[in-house]
Amino acid sequence: MAVGLKPPAQLHPVKGIRLSATHCGIKQDDTLKDLTLIEIGEGANVAAVFTRNRFCAAPVTLARQHLQQNQASAFLLINSGNANAGTGASGLDAAARSCAAVADVAQVEPSAVLPFSTGVIATPLPCEKIINAVPSMLSSLETDKWLQAAEGIMTTDTLPKAFSKQVRVDGQTVSITGIAKGSGMIKPDMATMLSFVATDAAIDAGELQVLLNQLVAKSFNSITVDGDTSTNDACVLIATGASGVSVGSDNVELIAALTEIFEHLAQSIIRDAEGATKFVVVDVENALSIEDAREVAYCIAHSPLVKTALFASDPNWGRILAAIGRARIDHLDIESVDLYLGDTCLLKNGMPDTGYTEARGQAAMADEEVNIRVNLNQGCENARIWTSDLSYDYVKINAEYRS
Amino acid sequence: MAVGLKPPAQLHPVKGIRLSATHCGIKQDDTLKDLTLIEIGEGANVAAVFTRNRFCAAPVTLARQHLQQNQASAFLLINSGNANAGTGASGLDAAARSCAAVADVAQVEPSAVLPFSTGVIATPLPCEKIINAVPSMLSSLETDKWLQAAEGIMTTDTLPKAFSKQVRVDGQTVSITGIAKGSGMIKPDMATMLSFVATDAAIDAGELQVLLNQLVAKSFNSITVDGDTSTNDACVLIATGASGVSVGSDNVELIAALTEIFEHLAQSIIRDAEGATKFVVVDVENALSIEDAREVAYCIAHSPLVKTALFASDPNWGRILAAIGRARIDHLDIESVDLYLGDTCLLKNGMPDTGYTEARGQAAMADEEVNIRVNLNQGCENARIWTSDLSYDYVKINAEYRS
Repeated sequence: MAVGLKPPAQLHPVKGIRLSATHCGIKQDDTLKDLTLIEIGEGANVAAVFTRNRFCAAPVTLARQHLQQNQASAFLLINSGNANAGTGASGLDAAARSCAAVADVAQVEPSAVLPFSTGVIATPLPCEKIINAVPSMLSSLETDKWLQAAEGIMTTDTLPKAFSKQVRVDGQTVSITGIAKGSGMIKPDMATMLSFVATDAAIDAGELQVLLNQLVAKSFNSITVDGDTSTNDACVLIATGASGVSVGSDNVELIAALTEIFEHLAQSIIRDAEGATKFVVVDVENALSIEDAREVAYCIAHSPLVKTALFASDPNWGRILAAIGRARIDHLDIESVDLYLGDTCLLKNGMPDTGYTEARGQAAMADEEVNIRVNLNQGCENARIWTSDLSYDYVKINAEYRS
Repeated sequence: MAVGLKPPAQLHPVKGIRLSATHCGIKQDDTLKDLTLIEIGEGANVAAVFTRNRFCAAPVTLARQHLQQNQASAFLLINSGNANAGTGASGLDAAARSCAAVADVAQVEPSAVLPFSTGVIATPLPCEKIINAVPSMLSSLETDKWLQAAEGIMTTDTLPKAFSKQVRVDGQTVSITGIAKGSGMIKPDMATMLSFVATDAAIDAGELQVLLNQLVAKSFNSITVDGDTSTNDACVLIATGASGVSVGSDNVELIAALTEIFEHLAQSIIRDAEGATKFVVVDVENALSIEDAREVAYCIAHSPLVKTALFASDPNWGRILAAIGRARIDHLDIESVDLYLGDTCLLKNGMPDTGYTEARGQAAMADEEVNIRVNLNQGCENARIWTSDLSYDYVKINAEYRS
């Protein structure tokens, strides 16, 4: 079902990062990986952002604690198939025991291990299965297992999501590789479902966190499938420094490469959205503020009626107009609003465009990649949101998720 | 598909009100009524609330103007099958010409005619069909055509929605009868899709508007199907005074009867929601403010993941918890939250309830009427929202709406 999403291409190893992934028994199908371990070499800096959902999962709580206690993270331990959310004190205990198992064998502090989980909410995490798998995972760490790691964090994803770039900085090569997962319960707020990106450049820790916040704002925090913010969202950016190349966070080449990777991973989640048949770019232009532009864009992107019209390839643009009209912004001058589907103008100054025909609208909706563009003609702030349509398969996938 | 919704029972005539309904040719199926006329006797007071969607329809704009120009409304003219929204200046002209046709034949001011439309957005209103039908509609007005009027305003509704009560006030009988329509694009904001309620009691005009606002807040403004606020929402309350009984808006019997009628009509819309298989009551209790309580309730009621779990009768309460957690309220103490499905406790003080079993959750979800109850244990304000589930048929109805 994925819309224009291909399997990952070449994934460059990142010096200072080793990975392993296996099936430890959380997922019922034993051909599916459900546990991933990422080793971070000494001297790396790690930045992270997490969900702002108040009911955050146990691993989110513990990962935040560990990052506060210990700047030198050595391992990321990620299980899929179980979110360890809504699991109370026993959930926190299960996450802590999983981290301790890695710490014991690897001879590091437990706080140097960051836990992540994704999958069904409100089901106890079978942490014994994780603990039993830890020794063999530690002994099978390799630098070239990014694809396996991407597979290991999948839930309802139909394809692994990973992207990689090499850039030249001061005549030397820097590698950046990232993975992500996510397909439903997607409206990240400060982070995405799960994404892990690493570079072997050296970047100052404070700068790295600022850089991550900026990258996330225009990638994972600009996508939505269903408006539902997950309890487990997390995004980690690692700079190992193992390439020996030290770069500032204002380095143009590095920022361009990181931006491309973050956007690609975020878009991959939308291309693989549950039941998606369309990849939709919503642009809101010339708003008074970025917040206004995002509010209008999200009203369109969340409207079940707009999403079902997209599924039907029906240019029923009255629904887009109704979604704009209900946006919670202080000032909306409907007589200034222009609305486009791709290059086709539907509404000019709030009035039906004289050149519009149903045939042109249908042509603009027929493609599996659709651009909805709203020009508010009020100010100079823009926002872009990526979203998907609402299909029978979205209902099927989510009605049958636990059965 | 309607959940526990029966055809209307006895509908009492309301003195001072006559109605007619016909097929004038807007709907393709000529067995379906698409035009309704309601005559309001002299001396009546009329209160109205309209959508707050900025892209409101032409009839909404014109009805507001007419009410400002003229306190003495004589007719409500309602067409279904076409919303006359997103139709620009020609839409306003079509609405004005329709009103003028009634005014000409009936010998009243055009501003004494209030227009209402519901149906497809962004399609020109064929007002000649309305104008041609006006003379025969005026000559066929009757006091006992409330059911025909309810049928005449239907769009994707599967059943007409009407409810009627008689109450004794000061030893005399007062009648109240109301009709409503609506099934999708339902998240009324200051009003519902369309509802018209009349009583033959005499009520002061100012008090009538205040009363209507109060009634709507706890009925039509407390329901949601899909979060999409329509461009055409309107609700009208008429007090004809023709019974000769004058009552204050603080009359207990009258308020109780009106409240019952408004709640019944609002619930009817949810019972008949597009594709609905469940009727869901979301209660949020003991919030710091009514706004907080409503925000949490709407986050649950709008969540596609909660709605698909309801469709599947799956007690996947992690999704409810995630919806609560993303509510935009300032203070949420997750360690105080209790969550119930019917009488079954899922979460106590933010922790899984020790007595909960999957079997008990499944039993609580099996019924076609489900109560989700959240106790925030923070303050003393409560909110109740009625909603529906998200089924294959919701997608089907809305993907095929214009085809």
